Amino acid sequence: MEFRIEKDTMGEVQVPVNAYYGAQTQRSIDNFKIAQDINKMPKEIIRAFAYLKKAAALTNLDAGVLPKEKADLIGQVCDEILEGKLDAEFPLVVWQTGSGTQSNMNVNEVVAYRAHVINGGQLTDKDKVIHPNDDVNKSQSSNDTFPTAMHIAAYKMLVEVTIPGIRKLRNTLAQKSQDFMHVVKIGRTHFMDATPLTVGQELSGYVSQLDHGLKAIHNTLAHLSELALGGTAVGTGINTPKNYSVNVARHIANLTGIPFITAENKFEALAAHDAIVEAHGALKTVAVSLMKIANDIRMLSSGPRSGIGELFIPDNEPGSSIMPGKVNPTQCEALTMIAAQVMGNDVAIGIGGANGHFELNVFKPVMIYNFLHSARLIGDGCVSFNDKCAEGLAPIEANIKKHVDNSLMLVTSLNTKIGYYKAAEIAQKAHKEGTTLKEMAVKLGYVTPEQFDEWVDPANMVGEIK
Amino acid sequence: MEFRIEKDTMGEVQVPVNAYYGAQTQRSIDNFKIAQDINKMPKEIIRAFAYLKKAAALTNLDAGVLPKEKADLIGQVCDEILEGKLDAEFPLVVWQTGSGTQSNMNVNEVVAYRAHVINGGQLTDKDKVIHPNDDVNKSQSSNDTFPTAMHIAAYKMLVEVTIPGIRKLRNTLAQKSQDFMHVVKIGRTHFMDATPLTVGQELSGYVSQLDHGLKAIHNTLAHLSELALGGTAVGTGINTPKNYSVNVARHIANLTGIPFITAENKFEALAAHDAIVEAHGALKTVAVSLMKIANDIRMLSSGPRSGIGELFIPDNEPGSSIMPGKVNPTQCEALTMIAAQVMGNDVAIGIGGANGHFELNVFKPVMIYNFLHSARLIGDGCVSFNDKCAEGLAPIEANIKKHVDNSLMLVTSLNTKIGYYKAAEIAQKAHKEGTTLKEMAVKLGYVTPEQFDEWVDPANMVGEIK
Amino acid sequence: MEFRIEKDTMGEVQVPVNAYYGAQTQRSIDNFKIAQDINKMPKEIIRAFAYLKKAAALTNLDAGVLPKEKADLIGQVCDEILEGKLDAEFPLVVWQTGSGTQSNMNVNEVVAYRAHVINGGQLTDKDKVIHPNDDVNKSQSSNDTFPTAMHIAAYKMLVEVTIPGIRKLRNTLAQKSQDFMHVVKIGRTHFMDATPLTVGQELSGYVSQLDHGLKAIHNTLAHLSELALGGTAVGTGINTPKNYSVNVARHIANLTGIPFITAENKFEALAAHDAIVEAHGALKTVAVSLMKIANDIRMLSSGPRSGIGELFIPDNEPGSSIMPGKVNPTQCEALTMIAAQVMGNDVAIGIGGANGHFELNVFKPVMIYNFLHSARLIGDGCVSFNDKCAEGLAPIEANIKKHVDNSLMLVTSLNTKIGYYKAAEIAQKAHKEGTTLKEMAVKLGYVTPEQFDEWVDPANMVGEIK
Amino acid sequence: MEFRIEKDTMGEVQVPVNAYYGAQTQRSIDNFKIAQDINKMPKEIIRAFAYLKKAAALTNLDAGVLPKEKADLIGQVCDEILEGKLDAEFPLVVWQTGSGTQSNMNVNEVVAYRAHVINGGQLTDKDKVIHPNDDVNKSQSSNDTFPTAMHIAAYKMLVEVTIPGIRKLRNTLAQKSQDFMHVVKIGRTHFMDATPLTVGQELSGYVSQLDHGLKAIHNTLAHLSELALGGTAVGTGINTPKNYSVNVARHIANLTGIPFITAENKFEALAAHDAIVEAHGALKTVAVSLMKIANDIRMLSSGPRSGIGELFIPDNEPGSSIMPGKVNPTQCEALTMIAAQVMGNDVAIGIGGANGHFELNVFKPVMIYNFLHSARLIGDGCVSFNDKCAEGLAPIEANIKKHVDNSLMLVTSLNTKIGYYKAAEIAQKAHKEGTTLKEMAVKLGYVTPEQFDEWVDPANMVGEIK
Repeated sequence: MEFRIEKDTMGEVQVPVNAYYGAQTQRSIDNFKIAQDINKMPKEIIRAFAYLKKAAALTNLDAGVLPKEKADLIGQVCDEILEGKLDAEFPLVVWQTGSGTQSNMNVNEVVAYRAHVINGGQLTDKDKVIHPNDDVNKSQSSNDTFPTAMHIAAYKMLVEVTIPGIRKLRNTLAQKSQDFMHVVKIGRTHFMDATPLTVGQELSGYVSQLDHGLKAIHNTLAHLSELALGGTAVGTGINTPKNYSVNVARHIANLTGIPFITAENKFEALAAHDAIVEAHGALKTVAVSLMKIANDIRMLSSGPRSGIGELFIPDNEPGSSIMPGKVNPTQCEALTMIAAQVMGNDVAIGIGGANGHFELNVFKPVMIYNFLHSARLIGDGCVSFNDKCAEGLAPIEANIKKHVDNSLMLVTSLNTKIGYYKAAEIAQKAHKEGTTLKEMAVKLGYVTPEQFDEWVDPANMVGEIK
Repeated sequence: MEFRIEKDTMGEVQVPVNAYYGAQTQRSIDNFKIAQDINKMPKEIIRAFAYLKKAAALTNLDAGVLPKEKADLIGQVCDEILEGKLDAEFPLVVWQTGSGTQSNMNVNEVVAYRAHVINGGQLTDKDKVIHPNDDVNKSQSSNDTFPTAMHIAAYKMLVEVTIPGIRKLRNTLAQKSQDFMHVVKIGRTHFMDATPLTVGQELSGYVSQLDHGLKAIHNTLAHLSELALGGTAVGTGINTPKNYSVNVARHIANLTGIPFITAENKFEALAAHDAIVEAHGALKTVAVSLMKIANDIRMLSSGPRSGIGELFIPDNEPGSSIMPGKVNPTQCEALTMIAAQVMGNDVAIGIGGANGHFELNVFKPVMIYNFLHSARLIGDGCVSFNDKCAEGLAPIEANIKKHVDNSLMLVTSLNTKIGYYKAAEIAQKAHKEGTTLKEMAVKLGYVTPEQFDEWVDPANMVGEIK
Repeated sequence: MEFRIEKDTMGEVQVPVNAYYGAQTQRSIDNFKIAQDINKMPKEIIRAFAYLKKAAALTNLDAGVLPKEKADLIGQVCDEILEGKLDAEFPLVVWQTGSGTQSNMNVNEVVAYRAHVINGGQLTDKDKVIHPNDDVNKSQSSNDTFPTAMHIAAYKMLVEVTIPGIRKLRNTLAQKSQDFMHVVKIGRTHFMDATPLTVGQELSGYVSQLDHGLKAIHNTLAHLSELALGGTAVGTGINTPKNYSVNVARHIANLTGIPFITAENKFEALAAHDAIVEAHGALKTVAVSLMKIANDIRMLSSGPRSGIGELFIPDNEPGSSIMPGKVNPTQCEALTMIAAQVMGNDVAIGIGGANGHFELNVFKPVMIYNFLHSARLIGDGCVSFNDKCAEGLAPIEANIKKHVDNSLMLVTSLNTKIGYYKAAEIAQKAHKEGTTLKEMAVKLGYVTPEQFDEWVDPANMVGEIK
Repeated sequence: MEFRIEKDTMGEVQVPVNAYYGAQTQRSIDNFKIAQDINKMPKEIIRAFAYLKKAAALTNLDAGVLPKEKADLIGQVCDEILEGKLDAEFPLVVWQTGSGTQSNMNVNEVVAYRAHVINGGQLTDKDKVIHPNDDVNKSQSSNDTFPTAMHIAAYKMLVEVTIPGIRKLRNTLAQKSQDFMHVVKIGRTHFMDATPLTVGQELSGYVSQLDHGLKAIHNTLAHLSELALGGTAVGTGINTPKNYSVNVARHIANLTGIPFITAENKFEALAAHDAIVEAHGALKTVAVSLMKIANDIRMLSSGPRSGIGELFIPDNEPGSSIMPGKVNPTQCEALTMIAAQVMGNDVAIGIGGANGHFELNVFKPVMIYNFLHSARLIGDGCVSFNDKCAEGLAPIEANIKKHVDNSLMLVTSLNTKIGYYKAAEIAQKAHKEGTTLKEMAVKLGYVTPEQFDEWVDPANMVGEIK
């Protein structure tokens, strides 16, 4: 590989001759040889930086501290980054400095040097028209840009991937709930037969879980909408022009279409990332819901002959490399694995969040890496589960009817007629002797056959149906 | 010990002759010999049951399915439970059936049998005036009462202990922040010297964390305000009178003074406890904040001679059994241990929440046990930390001044005058040669002494102070 | 309450007139009003302290730095503590100083003052025959005694409660595995029907899990056997007589009957508690195993009519307060709740372990509290599960036979005869048309009826049985 | 893109015309559009499959159930996979079926079709010389191959990356410990000044942590060395030749140079992954150690002027984009972020491990993904930390001396001369009046100046130095 020489405040560094990045990016590559093939800084962070660098340039322009030509050049490179044209220029990994300084400098260098080239210069020119620190990073610090990028990336992922994914699944389940609202089935508590409900009612519980989960996520957006930018080095806003923080947040809001505002307290915004912890708590809640839903669906569809077999799910692929003809609830498996991952990520984020010190939390990259991972997995996972499983759900009515007809727990409706103890006697004896409830109830003399038929009707035991 | 014989649907059981509880409680004692000395079902759950049993009796009375004398007797015993008079009658542990059925039956039995005694009967009477299942548990199931008790207990603990505790600490820190708003100190990022801020600004970050934490908790109360009661066995409301669920929630709201409402979807309310998962996510966020705050305070008060020594904290006790005269930040230690516990509890709750199946989650006791533990620890811990540490916080001005005067990072204010690279050169050389910034800046010829004094003034580097 | 005045190096304190503890214990009660009703320092720690204080006195006596009368008195009180006679004298909570200094001083005070009384003195005497610091704590620091107590308590709990509990369950399952080794049943993978195995084989998997779990625990005992005692304040052993650390470990080994040794590196033993983290990792592994086992058992026993219904488990109590005659897998529920708790405790312990600083980890109480909790829960939980569930396990042969006879996955044995693709065709068509495998196999012309009967015999598909 | 048609038992599928994979791989790509750009199945798993497919072919050859030409062809493709030549042919993600069936089939297809091409055939040939199921997968199931691949990949990563990485860091720290064994410094407990120790002693604690961590990892290798292969579909070994499981494990041991053996119990090996849970528990223990060590080092190197400043660490890069000349402990930050990640991964693994059901755990991919991530991060992280930080560690003797000379805790050595209470009085008064210990000790008349100098010598307070 051919190299050119770049300099930073510590001296000279060799960088690949055509790389748009410079000395500090190269130092980070050399200093952090940790999982470089699998743990690049998420591209969502790089793109969030593009929004904020452009917004900072515009704000600096407005404030009269950056000339228009420089602001334009910076904005132009940021647009290229947002279009994905410069993805290869961001080689750094998550496992770098905990402030993300090196990724901030990576962006500063790429913007400055690419701008120089756009402006007609060459990468090997000693002086460049735009300076990474003095121009691109003007009125900024890694300490306020990185957390700003975290909030931009997190919020965008939530509204663009996570929430739509959950909502798509929620809507399908709601439709299925309506479709099967009158299919009476046996309830199960403790894995044991219980009183009946309808398939639609059962599904409505899942819909309610996702509705509450969506509310939980929405509740955390307000904190995520607060941006650290303008706090600079320690939160005091040193080296920023007047009204910078409010203005730059407004620019970011305009560029992203998301209602970002400047953080009420910049010291909190640099030194803590409770907004990330809190919002991921909501994602974890959704993961918990998804684990429940996917577990139910795979158990209800178990069989085909020796399981519960009440729910049909689509056959998407051969299920076994050795057992011919086997079909498995693979979408449920992907979704429950995702839930496990999100629950683990939650711990990593919590530990990162708890260990900020003084004016700066330096677990920023690990926190946002895990956050974006979870947000993405839930979004993608819900869409996959929706498209390949939920949309094809259907009750297997023959099995459902068999189960409800056999159930001993229909006896519950007799409680209010003959009391809990006599009802229990009927159920226990029917179980022991293998008879139906009706036979035993009549045999014990507690009800007449007519009373039994009137009182013990599964369709009457499922309550009012909306 | 003397015994009497009690019966349930499975047969006879010996119970202590004077116990108000009956056969099913005794079975649970015998069947679950697990940590019986340390893990009783939390008393907050028992008292929540008292509210709901009384409310159920009132609602049944209104609905005409329970006579007034019975409703009155039930209510009378519930009041005794709320007064703590019957605490010894609830011996069951957390590690029982996952639906909490046995604790529900424990309450049903105690209410029925104590009512019988209040009514002039004897514990040894074969028939009692009130029946545990048919009267006390009327229109209820363990499956809806236990989750209702969970929400009552959780909500009450949050508003009575947790939130007031956090708020107390928040207010003290806010006052201290005001008091020390103009004490300029060195900032620290990455544990390294950075640009200055004031002690008050630093503390304002903690206040903002707790403010956001309080908001996070408040955001979760809506879901917690939803009560499962009225869903009975599987969510369909089998064996309840008309409008029961709405009415019983209104009674509970009246009795507790908390705006409880009936859950929109009873299937969710029985089969999932996402409200607990979500609300505990907020508690975990606060734990994360407290870990940060307590860590900062103990590091800032470290020393007395070989640490940072910028913050005075009260001496509450001798710190060492071997090192005479030692004083330690013990309140910080208790609080950070609490944070660790809450972060662990969060995982237990998540696992419990994720593993509900079909119509019922059967990790109810472990979930509420951990929730109440966390909510209590945060509340008590904040009050203890407030009273014994935060209220006594004071800056140690001599050390603060020494640190800020020595700092090399004051050079940052020169960025906008001479550029980042020359500023870096000044700082690096001053560090290497052990000089002051000013000496080096002048020596390198980048600024005059007069310019240095004008541009590099810590008091001007802390931004606008509110 | 009546009080007497006690003094420590910070001044006078009022303590209850008859309490054997003194000023520092009282300060801790006053300073840490955190969950005092539910989170006392575990009694196992107090008793571990009794062993070590006695051992220290004996070692000091051997070294000639403590007179025999004092050593004898100290030993006598330690014996009383071990007999449980002084339990009420240890009122402190987990949420105190993170070094456990206050509990060490609580023990020092109780031993000193009780010794004084045994010796004929009065609690109100100004000077006591034994001094808490200079005699009872001689050659010790909280910093080495508390971690020593942690290891003693943890190791004892493991060998006295945890391991025997797991082993009891393991042995029952091994016996059941033998008993049902020839009962052929359908296998299930992905919750779907698979090729057959025997009930005994299935149970043997659980036995193997517990065997590996026991090995995992045993692997961690070596690190737990290392004692910090002799490191005193920071690990250097300041203020200890020659060979103290080796000798005191030998005394503790003698007193406890456990092969304790002095830690190879005292700096590690004070500043880190990786032995606790590591050993709890093994407990978590067992919790994971128990979750698996208990889940299987409750799903295999699900029904009685609409579930899998292949395994009988004992009916220990009425299962429902509303559904008469219902029986639930309550022991499975207690055990899985325990597993969730242990998995949460693991996180609390990890966070505590990771946050030691410099010469001392100050998350000691929260770490050992969680460790002992898990160790106890697993031990008690296994015994309860064993006695009330595992011992009564039995196959329900009618259902087992029905399931195996119906299964489509028996087709797998045809792979080696006719190839995977043709076998798949048979299974898929039989499933679609609702026929038996044999009918379809013959209809498709891939095998003769005789070949089918020879090749597809479930009893031949379960491999070699040991 | 151009396509060709491939078939599996469910029908026809279009695959890219030059892809070596076939229908089932393509179905998985289409069915699991979840984080496809960032979460490919780890390449270590693909390569582990190459070892086991080759070993299976050899074993089948030995057993006479696979002809030599086929075995040779299979082995040849496996070698190509191991050389990394076919990496692009394995596009599947972690979030697929929980048994990893699709990755097993991906390997089966690539081996079969590439073998066909090697043998002179074309990808578009309808019949291929090697069949994915009947030849490549012969005597195997996904259910035993995937867990076998998990153990191979995990064990290899541990011995090739993780253990060498830890050991490298351990050795550097051990050398530094020796180098600085006589540099006396102040100890710190609770962040507060304590009695002295040497820099070498302090570092020896870290060495001991890593030594114990290495032992902990080694303790888990025995379970990881057990291979599931031979259990096939449910553990019974259906469709395997005689002695297959023992022989195939021997072949794998030969190919990998790792002492793999066949699992004692195949039911455990398919249905549970406790070996992964247990081994990751050891990795988590090491993560906990690394968090401690890295935290200490960054705090000891804090400053340069307003922190502790006792330890020099190398300056690897400019530390701040806004604060010129700033240097940060970035390697410590990467390492502590890694620790947080590993602690989170531990929870994901535990949840996955706990949720296996019946004959198969279907959280296999998420478990091994997290395991390999942790093992890699620890290995790489230790090397990076070693090379860029630990090797450059050096005491800053001026600061160290200043701190130890000022310390009040040297008073501890007077305990055995004048008693704890008088010693405390000296320290407290010296602190209050800002004097030296000696001045106050003499002023109070407790010692003579000569006694003080003799008794209070830091160099005598650090114990015996090995």
